[in-house]
Amino acid sequence: MLSRKDQKFIKSLKVKKYRTREKCFLVEGAKNVQELINSDYKIEFLVGSESFISQNLKSGSHRNEIVKPDLLEQLGTFKTNEDAIAVARMKEWNGHQINFDDHIFLLDGVGDPGNVGTIIRTLDWFGFDQVVCSEGCAEFYHPKVINSTMGSFTRMKVFNVDISEFYSQNNLPVFAADMSGKSIKDFKPEHPVVIVLGSESHGVGDTTRKNISDYLSIPKFGNAESLNVGIATGILAAHFRMS
Amino acid sequence: MLSRKDQKFIKSLKVKKYRTREKCFLVEGAKNVQELINSDYKIEFLVGSESFISQNLKSGSHRNEIVKPDLLEQLGTFKTNEDAIAVARMKEWNGHQINFDDHIFLLDGVGDPGNVGTIIRTLDWFGFDQVVCSEGCAEFYHPKVINSTMGSFTRMKVFNVDISEFYSQNNLPVFAADMSGKSIKDFKPEHPVVIVLGSESHGVGDTTRKNISDYLSIPKFGNAESLNVGIATGILAAHFRMS
Repeated sequence: MLSRKDQKFIKSLKVKKYRTREKCFLVEGAKNVQELINSDYKIEFLVGSESFISQNLKSGSHRNEIVKPDLLEQLGTFKTNEDAIAVARMKEWNGHQINFDDHIFLLDGVGDPGNVGTIIRTLDWFGFDQVVCSEGCAEFYHPKVINSTMGSFTRMKVFNVDISEFYSQNNLPVFAADMSGKSIKDFKPEHPVVIVLGSESHGVGDTTRKNISDYLSIPKFGNAESLNVGIATGILAAHFRMS
Repeated sequence: MLSRKDQKFIKSLKVKKYRTREKCFLVEGAKNVQELINSDYKIEFLVGSESFISQNLKSGSHRNEIVKPDLLEQLGTFKTNEDAIAVARMKEWNGHQINFDDHIFLLDGVGDPGNVGTIIRTLDWFGFDQVVCSEGCAEFYHPKVINSTMGSFTRMKVFNVDISEFYSQNNLPVFAADMSGKSIKDFKPEHPVVIVLGSESHGVGDTTRKNISDYLSIPKFGNAESLNVGIATGILAAHFRMS
């Protein structure tokens, strides 16, 4: 039975202040919750339709509560949700755990949660399991970030760092996406590099500019003023993996 | 002076039925409205802040009405809009105007307006000025499509076609993005081809499957189940232009 207190708790996790205090976050929709169940994240409890719960029962691991779809929609952030919402415990990663043996994507002030979620999904497709985020990026545990990863959040280590410290902590060359940069077409590094994506409106920040090795651009053939930051990340990730 | 009738008219254009009847659509936010002003779309009238209108005045071409930001937010679809909303007259394109001299991107049942808008912005970046849409795609003049193109809608010809007719109308080879397809890495066509993107949940439809030359995939290196359709389009467009 889902108590009023449970309901209030779920709703509170839409707000960053309560997520931070409780160290818990929401996961919504069939795909995301299934991936959560199959991950090593700790689930506090799960509310879902009878059919979702019966099909995704993992014995004895966490509390399941059957509810009607209209309650799922009241509790969560989805307009329609006929499947499930889970409350899971946050993981936290420390900058010292960053692996420098592969290219590293760094998001510098990417504030839109949908973009950050799509970027995580895309990096996961291309076999990157870590992403470094500056201050000013959308919070990883924001429901819109989590939900737009389509389950990829379960495989991603997210490092929220002071980027000055990050840059001084390693010797990898730093390349930032910038329309004035040199074309990626001729850029195929053999050793790991850091690839920085900035915000769509302001580009990368001053700290990145002070630590830059060079700027890279995605060749433009038409008239659009810019590319969406998720699209740019996808093209760069594809380029680094495929070339 | 913006009359009550004008206000009602603007609000009505959020709904497809009224857009279709009036053959008018909304354009919102500084960037989109500026691109509209500089395009050959006919503007019926424009409502905006005093500073936006004074900075973007185009002499004698259309009616401008100064309003307060809170009215812009009431009238339009943006949560915050301190700049402008324009009412513009639709263009319509006929399938016989399709140019077959370059690769053609076809969207087969891509229903999410944000994805369609981002795809149009991306195709514009890569120098494609046309896109073919099947039934079931988000309507081009949906405010979310228009607004997420970031002005690129002004440069795109959008062909809403019966795709059986489209396929029989030309002899270009048809390639669809599909995870089971052959890697794009080794696929560099010298002559124009049709590239089909399907919906994220159902892939391409039966009509496309009956007309297919081959399936193409974006190599996967990690564990995400799929790529966002906008990201996939961006990677394919970059590949076709850069290789």
